[in-house]
Amino acid sequence: MKVGVFDSGIGGLTVVKSLLEHQLFEEIIYFGDTARVPYGSKDKNTIIRYAIEAVEFFKNFELDMIIVACNTVSAYALDEMNESADCPVIGVVEAGILATANSLQERDANILIIGTNATINSQAYEDGLRLKNFSNLHAKATPLLVPLVEEEIFSGEIINATFKHYFSKLERPQALILGCTHFPLLTKELQKYFTQETQLIHSGDAIVEYLQNRFAFEKKYKNPKMKFFASENPEALRTIARKWLNV
Amino acid sequence: MKVGVFDSGIGGLTVVKSLLEHQLFEEIIYFGDTARVPYGSKDKNTIIRYAIEAVEFFKNFELDMIIVACNTVSAYALDEMNESADCPVIGVVEAGILATANSLQERDANILIIGTNATINSQAYEDGLRLKNFSNLHAKATPLLVPLVEEEIFSGEIINATFKHYFSKLERPQALILGCTHFPLLTKELQKYFTQETQLIHSGDAIVEYLQNRFAFEKKYKNPKMKFFASENPEALRTIARKWLNV
Repeated sequence: MKVGVFDSGIGGLTVVKSLLEHQLFEEIIYFGDTARVPYGSKDKNTIIRYAIEAVEFFKNFELDMIIVACNTVSAYALDEMNESADCPVIGVVEAGILATANSLQERDANILIIGTNATINSQAYEDGLRLKNFSNLHAKATPLLVPLVEEEIFSGEIINATFKHYFSKLERPQALILGCTHFPLLTKELQKYFTQETQLIHSGDAIVEYLQNRFAFEKKYKNPKMKFFASENPEALRTIARKWLNV
Repeated sequence: MKVGVFDSGIGGLTVVKSLLEHQLFEEIIYFGDTARVPYGSKDKNTIIRYAIEAVEFFKNFELDMIIVACNTVSAYALDEMNESADCPVIGVVEAGILATANSLQERDANILIIGTNATINSQAYEDGLRLKNFSNLHAKATPLLVPLVEEEIFSGEIINATFKHYFSKLERPQALILGCTHFPLLTKELQKYFTQETQLIHSGDAIVEYLQNRFAFEKKYKNPKMKFFASENPEALRTIARKWLNV
């Protein structure tokens, strides 16, 4: 199968990493809208417009599916993308909700969702989790974590001060949904801050679980064909991809 | 006189604040490209393309001049904007260089320039200051300060940790050029960190000085007409403008 992976920038590479680990696809076409990144501070209408343009871009390749590896786009534009696309479009939010529901026994578990301003304002995770009968839901926009990851600051004093700024008044959750594909790069420090008592829900792992439930993957592809596109400076994206994915 | 003020987002409002304080203009038209902000992490070609689109937008108003209230755009696209525009286009970088040269006596003064990745990579400040015979020049990209200001975090633990991260290995400069129009909002903490020994160069004040040297302003306008446009969510921009500018 041939998949398109869409993100506003580089964060979606953490989802590609999970796809590669599970060797699900024969070919992966990645598109990052680096000329207009970030989406997380932008408006619903702008996000939908950009997302539909990405679908148009993917029509140049005969894809079996498109994965939206960006929580903000998944939260706002998934329906519109599905209407425009000629293949299924699958988002990390829906996958994250299912992964959370599958991994938590108790419906009164304390769940904390973190993400960009746009993702948190959408309440997409809360809406989906409520349909699964979860009720003890907390959400916190943590937009500063995005530029920190982009600056490759993954630990140290600024990270500690930023965690304290966002989390010091919150109870320790049983599950922490990493509602932004940049955040898996902070897994180690987040796990340290919240302790091992907190289960982290990762968009990449969630997508793999979702895909394996929904589609039949008959073969493994150890060395899939990969192409990386970006709306500006694709070479910079390719350099980061090589570094993060070891490809 | 009627002026257009262009910025990638909201930072340029700090320049408008200086224009208002000096009552220079009869009418101010502000345009923030909020649908594509930030520019500071983007490519030269992308920045030039967006800047020329802004010039086209301003052609709807009969302007006497355009002020580029964004250091990144000033560093990369000023010539191209001047070619496209039918009025003078003036940038904060050129103004900042002149203001620095006017305020420092010694040509061997230690000058530190801070800004976005794009502005610092352009070396636009260093090039201009070298032409003025300054040689003790240091530049540091401080991209995290932009989202901190956008989150309205102006002091406290994260700011201290971030200053330490960027500045702890640098000598205290005699002049610090705030090479991003977000940074004046951190003036108080920057002045505290570097002490009163360091003179801060502010794009808004620099532009006023530059304009007063170059143009004849015969009248003062206490209550100029003001219009705020944005490529997305102009209402959000207007709310911030009212708050920051007290208008």
